[in-house]
Amino acid sequence: MKLAVLQTAGPADPDPKAALDLLEARAAEAAGQGARLLVAPELFLTGYNIGERAWDLAEPADGPSAGRAAAIAAAHGLALLYGFPERTPEGIYNAALFVDSDGRRACYRKAHLFGAEEKRLFRPGDARPTLLEVGGLKVAPLICYDVEFPEAVRWAAEAGAQLVAVPTALMEPMAFVAETLVPARAYENGVFVAYANRAGREGDLTYVGRSSIAAPDGALLAAAGAEEEALLVAELDWAGHAATRAANPYHADRRRDLYP
Amino acid sequence: MKLAVLQTAGPADPDPKAALDLLEARAAEAAGQGARLLVAPELFLTGYNIGERAWDLAEPADGPSAGRAAAIAAAHGLALLYGFPERTPEGIYNAALFVDSDGRRACYRKAHLFGAEEKRLFRPGDARPTLLEVGGLKVAPLICYDVEFPEAVRWAAEAGAQLVAVPTALMEPMAFVAETLVPARAYENGVFVAYANRAGREGDLTYVGRSSIAAPDGALLAAAGAEEEALLVAELDWAGHAATRAANPYHADRRRDLYP
Repeated sequence: MKLAVLQTAGPADPDPKAALDLLEARAAEAAGQGARLLVAPELFLTGYNIGERAWDLAEPADGPSAGRAAAIAAAHGLALLYGFPERTPEGIYNAALFVDSDGRRACYRKAHLFGAEEKRLFRPGDARPTLLEVGGLKVAPLICYDVEFPEAVRWAAEAGAQLVAVPTALMEPMAFVAETLVPARAYENGVFVAYANRAGREGDLTYVGRSSIAAPDGALLAAAGAEEEALLVAELDWAGHAATRAANPYHADRRRDLYP
Repeated sequence: MKLAVLQTAGPADPDPKAALDLLEARAAEAAGQGARLLVAPELFLTGYNIGERAWDLAEPADGPSAGRAAAIAAAHGLALLYGFPERTPEGIYNAALFVDSDGRRACYRKAHLFGAEEKRLFRPGDARPTLLEVGGLKVAPLICYDVEFPEAVRWAAEAGAQLVAVPTALMEPMAFVAETLVPARAYENGVFVAYANRAGREGDLTYVGRSSIAAPDGALLAAAGAEEEALLVAELDWAGHAATRAANPYHADRRRDLYP
């Protein structure tokens, strides 16, 4: 299964239409390279560091932007996963929408909100991710801070996920997360991890870029730099990593009796 | 609290007396630099790759080698943690003995046995580590493969450990563990991690060295090379990492409702 990860730089101002235009252009490019799934950053649709404007720009998971994303997926024959502020009757979530070319949709809500600002703006998600299937691989979406908790990725892997796909917005001074925790999660669970980050500045935040696609042996199949927009594409060869899983049988060797 | 980590190279043949001579020399050196705790590798006393000779060389946790280690600790005024094969009425464990200069002793038995050979030679430990106190810090011992399981280090940190001390015998091709998983465990739990490895060859194994002392922000306070014997010493300033714990409040932000 070929996977694409979009690292964005900017935008200067919240502009969902411009974001969808960019998504369409990159989806075409990714599909042209054979990708079956394109993962874009956290709050891709609106920008991340936009304060209460997230409340105004929030849309339902079946809103107009979702409709356009579904049309992009159908037109280019690949699935999309991107972050957006989700409007619901009970409040606004920091969410990620999955749409594929067959019209399937799923919405995941970030469970671990990061810092005072996210906790002020959003409600925390109250469900673990639903596993999706793309190109024969089972995919678990998580968002940014979620993946820093080993329990979340462990749960996903034990539920059968082969790829953990992470829209994110990781800023300075936390490059350690992209450089070390992301490959650690891949290795300690024997799964692929796709980490789609922002780069450059947005208001008072400087994102660290370093989007990546990590393999079950912890190796980076593709990695972006710190500052520029990038489209990463890599082949995820699950069967080809059978030896990795045999060499690192963490799931079989876990001591659930001592550490449930 | 100043901590020392001993990376050993060799030995060619199992020789507990030579190992204790080395321990005494390094304990004197570490104490001379102000260290309060010296951590030595897994099965330090006998060698790691010695097959069934571990059964013959195993000693009780209060056996003669433990007595000499206690005398070394008392003479040099520092605590020791080192690996040895522990003889018990029910069988042999891959264990680590803690002795301090006040005569306190504790024995931890490796819970996660690695590979067919360890599972053939040893019984698995059936208890989580008992927390020790050294120089004002709470210390949790784990052994090698144990630390690769995020659940074990999470448990120790939530039990109050500030330092996770790990006698290990990490071999090729698993340098990823030393380079990435060890600092990841420190960062994701906000604790110090001491990783005391072997280096060089022992029979058909080549150890990766790379012993280290990782800080709660994931930075390496000290690190050894791949091949040589080394004595690492670093100051563990728990109070000085208050800002790290505030910036990465993983324990407070954990979603125990979703990922118990």
